[in-house]
Amino acid sequence: MTRKTPAKPCTPAAPQAALNATWLALRRVAIDTYRENVAYLHRDCAVYRAEGFQALSKVEVSANGRKILATLNVVDDEAIVGCGELGVSEDAFALLRVRDGHPASVSQAEPAGSIPALHRKIAGERLERDDFRAIVRDIAERRYSKIELTAFVVACNQDELDREEVYFLTDAMAATGRCLDWHERLVVDKHCVGGIPGNRTSMLVVPMVAAHGMLCPKTSSRAITSPAGTADTMEVLANVELPFERLAELVREHRGCLVWGGTAELSPADDVLISVERPLSIDSPGQMVASILSKKVAAGSTHLLLDIPVGPSAKVRSMPEAQRLRKLFQYVAGRMHLALDVVITDGRQPIGNGIGPALEARDIMRVLQCDPRAPDDLRQKALRLAGRMLEFDPDVRGGDGFAIARDILDSGRALTKMDAIIHAQGSRGFDHNAPPLGKLSFDVAAPADGVVTGIDNLQIARIARFAGAPKVAGAGVDLFHKLGNKVAAGEPLYRVYAAYPSDLEFAREASAKASGYSIGAAQNVPHVFVEF
Amino acid sequence: MTRKTPAKPCTPAAPQAALNATWLALRRVAIDTYRENVAYLHRDCAVYRAEGFQALSKVEVSANGRKILATLNVVDDEAIVGCGELGVSEDAFALLRVRDGHPASVSQAEPAGSIPALHRKIAGERLERDDFRAIVRDIAERRYSKIELTAFVVACNQDELDREEVYFLTDAMAATGRCLDWHERLVVDKHCVGGIPGNRTSMLVVPMVAAHGMLCPKTSSRAITSPAGTADTMEVLANVELPFERLAELVREHRGCLVWGGTAELSPADDVLISVERPLSIDSPGQMVASILSKKVAAGSTHLLLDIPVGPSAKVRSMPEAQRLRKLFQYVAGRMHLALDVVITDGRQPIGNGIGPALEARDIMRVLQCDPRAPDDLRQKALRLAGRMLEFDPDVRGGDGFAIARDILDSGRALTKMDAIIHAQGSRGFDHNAPPLGKLSFDVAAPADGVVTGIDNLQIARIARFAGAPKVAGAGVDLFHKLGNKVAAGEPLYRVYAAYPSDLEFAREASAKASGYSIGAAQNVPHVFVEF
Repeated sequence: MTRKTPAKPCTPAAPQAALNATWLALRRVAIDTYRENVAYLHRDCAVYRAEGFQALSKVEVSANGRKILATLNVVDDEAIVGCGELGVSEDAFALLRVRDGHPASVSQAEPAGSIPALHRKIAGERLERDDFRAIVRDIAERRYSKIELTAFVVACNQDELDREEVYFLTDAMAATGRCLDWHERLVVDKHCVGGIPGNRTSMLVVPMVAAHGMLCPKTSSRAITSPAGTADTMEVLANVELPFERLAELVREHRGCLVWGGTAELSPADDVLISVERPLSIDSPGQMVASILSKKVAAGSTHLLLDIPVGPSAKVRSMPEAQRLRKLFQYVAGRMHLALDVVITDGRQPIGNGIGPALEARDIMRVLQCDPRAPDDLRQKALRLAGRMLEFDPDVRGGDGFAIARDILDSGRALTKMDAIIHAQGSRGFDHNAPPLGKLSFDVAAPADGVVTGIDNLQIARIARFAGAPKVAGAGVDLFHKLGNKVAAGEPLYRVYAAYPSDLEFAREASAKASGYSIGAAQNVPHVFVEF
Repeated sequence: MTRKTPAKPCTPAAPQAALNATWLALRRVAIDTYRENVAYLHRDCAVYRAEGFQALSKVEVSANGRKILATLNVVDDEAIVGCGELGVSEDAFALLRVRDGHPASVSQAEPAGSIPALHRKIAGERLERDDFRAIVRDIAERRYSKIELTAFVVACNQDELDREEVYFLTDAMAATGRCLDWHERLVVDKHCVGGIPGNRTSMLVVPMVAAHGMLCPKTSSRAITSPAGTADTMEVLANVELPFERLAELVREHRGCLVWGGTAELSPADDVLISVERPLSIDSPGQMVASILSKKVAAGSTHLLLDIPVGPSAKVRSMPEAQRLRKLFQYVAGRMHLALDVVITDGRQPIGNGIGPALEARDIMRVLQCDPRAPDDLRQKALRLAGRMLEFDPDVRGGDGFAIARDILDSGRALTKMDAIIHAQGSRGFDHNAPPLGKLSFDVAAPADGVVTGIDNLQIARIARFAGAPKVAGAGVDLFHKLGNKVAAGEPLYRVYAAYPSDLEFAREASAKASGYSIGAAQNVPHVFVEF
């Protein structure tokens, strides 16, 4: 469609614009466009007309020596942006770090230099190390449009990357952004590929290995599609957003931390890629390996324990798939000089009882307190993982890790360490005997007598999210029964907590459609095929 | 990043909002977001908070029984949108067809129903007929985000579609939107896969075949990446945007027309797909075939002549590539019951002299007038194409078409027909002896004595676009020499026309960097490998 505009004379809004046609007055437009910089120009603005911009053109906005890229929207209302003004969305305004009215200029953005390499990848070619470096740098600098980003992600999906290319991508992602160096021989970390609700073992493993003296500066993510990430759950107990200098100090003193990784600016391209991978539900092996290992290497880890849960509703569905993924992780970790131990674990059902930040924090504190109400599966899994991590220590004999971990936990040394970390990060005063749960709740009951033969990780996670988790920390699902438990008809299987009536209704509808539980005969409980 | 907002009380801006929390007052936000519907909600709006929207969520806006999908932007300025108001961008506002202040509601958009099929295609699976139908319908209804659209385009790129899938895609695209039926046995059309500047043969072929009595209702596109589309050039001579009823009447009377295809709403998914294919420079064989054939079938054509130019700077670079493309066109056309004749033509250089709407219109009118200044290559190509099309007529002997076409042209019957079409569509009063060219110009001269051994289609097109074509109808490039011509050092090779000084400078810089001409020895002129 062509849009005809009358050639209305334009009144410059700022003296700078009058002096020089290329200077406009910067104006903060209070629109939150969520990680996409948007620039707003009035349709009658001389610069807009002279430059031949089109709406949705990529433009470069410069002010005070800083440059950002933005998508152009054309405005017909002087209340939003006038002639002689250059509007920018809130995030973009913050990036420019100048005041309203500051002189700014706008020009056609040069296309990102790596676009020819992107086109070669779209055409199915194999890329080289330098291609990935150029692409990842442009992505981290937000030079790619959403269209270009998506094209890269889809062109690298599935088997489109060979393992050498996955290594190039990982290496490029790790090298872009901040790289930490702890100046120690052994810097340990653990990571789970995800998909299992309640699987908050990091918050137990970190105090155990730090109590042993190993350096474990754990940075975690917030939930992307799950009801809680480790950062969300830890935030119930303590502040997780620390300035980097404070974090470094804390790690030196306590040998461990549990903070949100965002502030450390590690592998910034990863966050940008996730913004398109998430809505497309793309989570291919190559991208998973690059995402995880690039962050660990940038965080300065030397040793990593990787947890791959397998189950019918887990992210990894079969043992052969888990084995293939393990080999890819091993290959790339080897090229990156990262010592890697991979464990394939039982992912048939959620771990622990609580799902949602406050409920998970409750379970964790009960395990640390050796409280009889603590979920045993969470305790056992944490001990096994911590045991394997302790064996990264050359002075620990192979096979002794589990007993050492159990001793650290049962003696209260893990709790002492956790309390120290919580206080160092800034305690929130959480009490596991009175967790701040949502005031509204309902129970979901067993439809018949029998044995729990299945718990659908995805459906339980969905119900917890509908209930408000992780945004509402006290929202979530509290499981009363796990696989193999005998239940009677009408007996509650789980309780859903919410803070808002609408959330409660969404969760109730979802659980009415599918409770997430299967009740059947004892012999129908699926077997565990994994052991570590 | 989390953004904390104080829980400020919200004053409803419209009575509807006070009566029912889910009704908001619709507000036109004068921002042109170019084919992407955007909805604006104030951060403190009760609906925004209750629904748990995120910025960039896909939402459904309803007003007066109409529903549209939009991307959500969150606003912190009541001057843009207040609490109790629901702002929408200009295009979105037009689609809703209500007045400012009309009650409207907003809800989370249901994900498009075909998303699981999209995910299977991304995962490399082969899709079935119904999958393509569902995907194409969702695309035409703008249910796909830019991210999902891009994912579909990239996942269907290159060899990802087998020929059966290309047929399914073509069929689905043709079936979505309006389908014309002319109630005649023979409805002919011609199409060129593009890439050759100045190649405006349609404007000669249509009057020739219509003068013969064949029905040729030609709908054309505007330029996407070229300096002129047939619709842009025809618009110099006549109105090209006609209501469909007027168009049908005109075609019945004159047997032909030359209009812009956009108003006919043929294969609407194609326009949406092009919006992401263009910035990625994706033009894979499967997508090209589906795009072209779906529009022709929806337009009611029974017979199509397809022109595939081959040359070192054409879209198709080699004869084997052209042959593969021809076979794919033939396969899909056969499945669609469209009679197809494919000609592979000389694409080594631009056709005609003028490049840009007014310059091309000049050349065309000179050919029709049998003016001695008419470019002979344009005349010859048009005669050959028209000859092949005339042979679709069962009463024309194979091989006789060219002579019949030449007779139609030389007798002035083609000119009479063209004049009739121009007047029926609404004449613009063009005079080929005084074409309305840009007032500014410069010449590019031969750097040395020699023979023209190459003319780069892409570079000449780029210079014409920098000069302002096709937006500025009188801008473009007028070629004085073609392949094989002898030139002396300093002799002008071509003249560039522009209307604005900045355009002229852009074009001058581009031609200084690379003129697009190669001058060398006579034996270095590339051979023509094609003949039809």
